[in-house]
Amino acid sequence: MTDSRNTLFERAAQRLGFNLSEAIRIGGNYTPAIVHAGTAYVSGQVPRIGTVVAVTGRVGAEVTLEEAQRAACICTVRTLAILRQTLGSLDAVAQALRMTVYVQSAMDFTQQSEVADAASALLHEVLGEAGRHTRTSVGVVQLPKNASVELDLVVAV
Amino acid sequence: MTDSRNTLFERAAQRLGFNLSEAIRIGGNYTPAIVHAGTAYVSGQVPRIGTVVAVTGRVGAEVTLEEAQRAACICTVRTLAILRQTLGSLDAVAQALRMTVYVQSAMDFTQQSEVADAASALLHEVLGEAGRHTRTSVGVVQLPKNASVELDLVVAV
Amino acid sequence: MTDSRNTLFERAAQRLGFNLSEAIRIGGNYTPAIVHAGTAYVSGQVPRIGTVVAVTGRVGAEVTLEEAQRAACICTVRTLAILRQTLGSLDAVAQALRMTVYVQSAMDFTQQSEVADAASALLHEVLGEAGRHTRTSVGVVQLPKNASVELDLVVAV
Repeated sequence: MTDSRNTLFERAAQRLGFNLSEAIRIGGNYTPAIVHAGTAYVSGQVPRIGTVVAVTGRVGAEVTLEEAQRAACICTVRTLAILRQTLGSLDAVAQALRMTVYVQSAMDFTQQSEVADAASALLHEVLGEAGRHTRTSVGVVQLPKNASVELDLVVAV
Repeated sequence: MTDSRNTLFERAAQRLGFNLSEAIRIGGNYTPAIVHAGTAYVSGQVPRIGTVVAVTGRVGAEVTLEEAQRAACICTVRTLAILRQTLGSLDAVAQALRMTVYVQSAMDFTQQSEVADAASALLHEVLGEAGRHTRTSVGVVQLPKNASVELDLVVAV
Repeated sequence: MTDSRNTLFERAAQRLGFNLSEAIRIGGNYTPAIVHAGTAYVSGQVPRIGTVVAVTGRVGAEVTLEEAQRAACICTVRTLAILRQTLGSLDAVAQALRMTVYVQSAMDFTQQSEVADAASALLHEVLGEAGRHTRTSVGVVQLPKNASVELDLVVAV
């Protein structure tokens, strides 16, 4: 028997240092996720663990590709945690649809896709075939709280 | 009796200096809004009042947080004006779904969420519970016409 | 009799130097397009022809507006090629919904809308009325593989 999505998710979350007994905190004046007409929208997530943004700074300058990939994974775990909290279970995800990945980039850093690949891989690891998604990754000049990566996700439920 | 959304909208628009008798002008080769299958997509709005972009320049350098928040509010009023024009009334908005906020940012400006909070607050002020939304805010290097802020919105109708 | 969308598409693709007998290659760990509940999401496209990104570098510095517009057209042809490959025919596109255009911009380059206009015009040229769309265009600090432009699209099918 293969592991369930929720088990796979918990394993990934623990590997990245999450304490899943804490609810996900959202700072601003908006909501973590909205479900409408079979589509769930998740707000943009930075690599926050608890109250701390775990990976900050400019990728290609003070942050390496590997650290940025870890940041992308933390964003993805947060996104999955929000979906699980909103939907009751990750089994309710029918299909990932769209991921947009923003990388705080040095002027000459051009590996935004490679950063995003780590997020994509984690989505596949937890959701299997339902983790297939379309994706856009871009390099931005700054992100909230100096986060190195931010990503948002739309899924079918 | 509470004020209607259209009244609340007009009050916010006047506070920000709009002349609502003018139709919203769109510069480029695209359309302000499209409704399809119960979802309305609104094009990215810069803080234009009439023919002038009211807040230009880089936030965190020549533009303050407070000015950027005003810019975000003007973008939101334009977005609501387009929705009212397209749908006939703001009462037709069932639920805001997704807001993406782009802030023209200095390299070290990290308060994109605080800029976006002003837009979120205005959406709540006018739409009430239907103004709840998911959000992504990022810092970009430039925006059309040197605008300080640009935002786009997807809503359920 | 007017030309079919597929004919118009092939003409535009040839004008831009595409060899349509090659399938569209996607580099990363994601999928070119997903169709769900009547909506097709296409992944962000850079101006790649075959294995080469045809237009690279910063717009407003080493890349001119005209070159960036050509880049935006190449991104659009790739997007349409993916839609044709996914849907069988461009006739299956009911309505374009949302285009987001990212331009790798110099600090003082503010003509992101003019870059995106070229993509919008090509969408209208091929799809006619169904090519109407909402749009957001922003200036980013970098893009994957140093691409000058990246764009993504959502359409109704």
